[in-house]
Amino acid sequence: MQNLTMTVQPGVYTKTIYEEADKFNLFYPPDPGSMHISQIGGNISENSGGLRGLKYGVTKDYVLGLEVVLPNGDIIHTGGKLAKDVAGYNLTDLFVGSEGTLGIITKAILRLIPKPEKKKTMLALFHHMNDAAKAVSAIIENRIIPVTMEFLDQPTVKVVEDYAKIGLPTNAKAILIIEQDGSPEQVERDIVKISNLCRENGAFELKIAKTDQEAETLLTARRSALTALSRLKPTTILEDATVPRSEIANMVNAINEIAEKYDLTICTFGHAGDGNLHPTCLTDARDEEEMARVEKAFEEIFHKAIELGGTITGEHGVGKMKLPYLHLKVGEEGINVMRQIKKALDPNLIMNPGKILEFPEIEVLK
Amino acid sequence: MQNLTMTVQPGVYTKTIYEEADKFNLFYPPDPGSMHISQIGGNISENSGGLRGLKYGVTKDYVLGLEVVLPNGDIIHTGGKLAKDVAGYNLTDLFVGSEGTLGIITKAILRLIPKPEKKKTMLALFHHMNDAAKAVSAIIENRIIPVTMEFLDQPTVKVVEDYAKIGLPTNAKAILIIEQDGSPEQVERDIVKISNLCRENGAFELKIAKTDQEAETLLTARRSALTALSRLKPTTILEDATVPRSEIANMVNAINEIAEKYDLTICTFGHAGDGNLHPTCLTDARDEEEMARVEKAFEEIFHKAIELGGTITGEHGVGKMKLPYLHLKVGEEGINVMRQIKKALDPNLIMNPGKILEFPEIEVLK
Repeated sequence: MQNLTMTVQPGVYTKTIYEEADKFNLFYPPDPGSMHISQIGGNISENSGGLRGLKYGVTKDYVLGLEVVLPNGDIIHTGGKLAKDVAGYNLTDLFVGSEGTLGIITKAILRLIPKPEKKKTMLALFHHMNDAAKAVSAIIENRIIPVTMEFLDQPTVKVVEDYAKIGLPTNAKAILIIEQDGSPEQVERDIVKISNLCRENGAFELKIAKTDQEAETLLTARRSALTALSRLKPTTILEDATVPRSEIANMVNAINEIAEKYDLTICTFGHAGDGNLHPTCLTDARDEEEMARVEKAFEEIFHKAIELGGTITGEHGVGKMKLPYLHLKVGEEGINVMRQIKKALDPNLIMNPGKILEFPEIEVLK
Repeated sequence: MQNLTMTVQPGVYTKTIYEEADKFNLFYPPDPGSMHISQIGGNISENSGGLRGLKYGVTKDYVLGLEVVLPNGDIIHTGGKLAKDVAGYNLTDLFVGSEGTLGIITKAILRLIPKPEKKKTMLALFHHMNDAAKAVSAIIENRIIPVTMEFLDQPTVKVVEDYAKIGLPTNAKAILIIEQDGSPEQVERDIVKISNLCRENGAFELKIAKTDQEAETLLTARRSALTALSRLKPTTILEDATVPRSEIANMVNAINEIAEKYDLTICTFGHAGDGNLHPTCLTDARDEEEMARVEKAFEEIFHKAIELGGTITGEHGVGKMKLPYLHLKVGEEGINVMRQIKKALDPNLIMNPGKILEFPEIEVLK
């Protein structure tokens, strides 16, 4: 504990890591929405993000070292219980987020930080999406970095309230759930400043959680968004187009226009603070005609995200589904580099084949 | 500025980046000792560390995206003004710290953070190196993460004082220079706690800087260590063996024993908070017999660092000098992976040849 690290096997639940650290008054910040059921090996392979990315970063920022079994059977150890290490290429960060395509992670050294003394959670309600986005920008421009700034649009709020019955105001067009942590005085000051900035930018109501219990309820609302949405239609397609923070309002407006154009139900929620949005389409995979429209809509959404300086995936990874869109973000030259790295480490393409990259020329040779 | 990023060309001085950010009340934390003369392109290629690594991390933690010219002439853009991006392999972090061996960095998007409201700097003097190390551990165990915890041993203090004449106490066996930043109340509380912990662990004197000017003088003392040492002998060899924080006392003791064994003058200073030490040998490159002893001594120091779970280089990189020792840290299997990556991206070995990795089999073919 003197080194503020925790060494884990890949099968440990993310939530367990958080809870075990907490016992020592330490904090493991990455907080994927699925932390109750996700395992750290998966988090590392996907470089999972979550609700605290704005202030604390993502999984890669907390992985100090790895034990990896390579496709050729070699076992390597990268990094260590070290704050600084530049002995050769940074292999740790290459394996983090490689979606299991370069090797199998069998052990990880995680970095922990002291647990913040205090946290406070609040809700801000807006009549217009643009006002919520302006509030987010104003907060950052005032040099305040909250832990969490979650955004839910009206359709999402309605569905969540119907599901969770926690008293969310369904009359708001946009809701921000904001959390700040730190020293008690700093948190108090920040929450006052954030409240003022929200009001100045059009928030018509603010609710500050009075107890930990109330705060947890608010965050649970956000966490249950996907579950709530997935009850409505047979198929839920959750995306994670991500843009620079300054482009959030533009991106949400574009998503709504695209949904209308293709006559689809797309609810949007996500991490407003770090520009990581989750446009979620409620559809039915058996309806081929509608699925064709869904595909076109998401293609437009990805193009728009790239146009705004964003990326096709902020925290979910490429996998198979986004493979056709990877070139939009990294270009053919970037894909070429990734292919060279993959072939160098896994010439027989035995690790999680078909994910991230395609190798038609090699498949023909097989 | 809404995205808290700065886009720079590689030739910008590190100090300029710091100063320009400061004008917007923003903060670029990486702080290599050489920031007055180092350029950001070099910092990125070496993944430079510095005095603030303990709390704020190193250069890689502040590089969001790169433009890189590849050996084949392709230009790629990695990352972006994005807090989250998992579109394919993390190429940004592969190029950071690759010492120019994989491509030429022509542009970088840097992440900035709000400038801390307040900082405070103090000095703690100890009669024994072990006490200073225990104080460092006690501070961390009490869940306080100072920005800076710099360590200077007595020989270094004497030389620095002789050079800079700033009133450093040359009777102390070990000095810690500690700096904390954050909200005013938090900084006050932390400095009181840190002072108590230093006293409890044997500090015989504490000095808290009363003004920014005084604080700057203390840090200048640390920054001038290398310059001061290099005046004494024709040749100064500065190393950066790095160990887990819990092993600092063991490492410093080992360095002193090794210096005695080989009859060498080795002064040690460095970043105690993150285990990154700078054993510095004062010698004369013209004295072949002594240089042979120097080489043996450093080889033992590297072996000891690895034995303690550390690394051969924390922030200076491998280059040519540490090429023979890389296998100690990453193993032949790790070197093999790095070679495969290098060959995949730079098959003709035209980028900064001879650094980090050797390719005798390819050189023969040429």
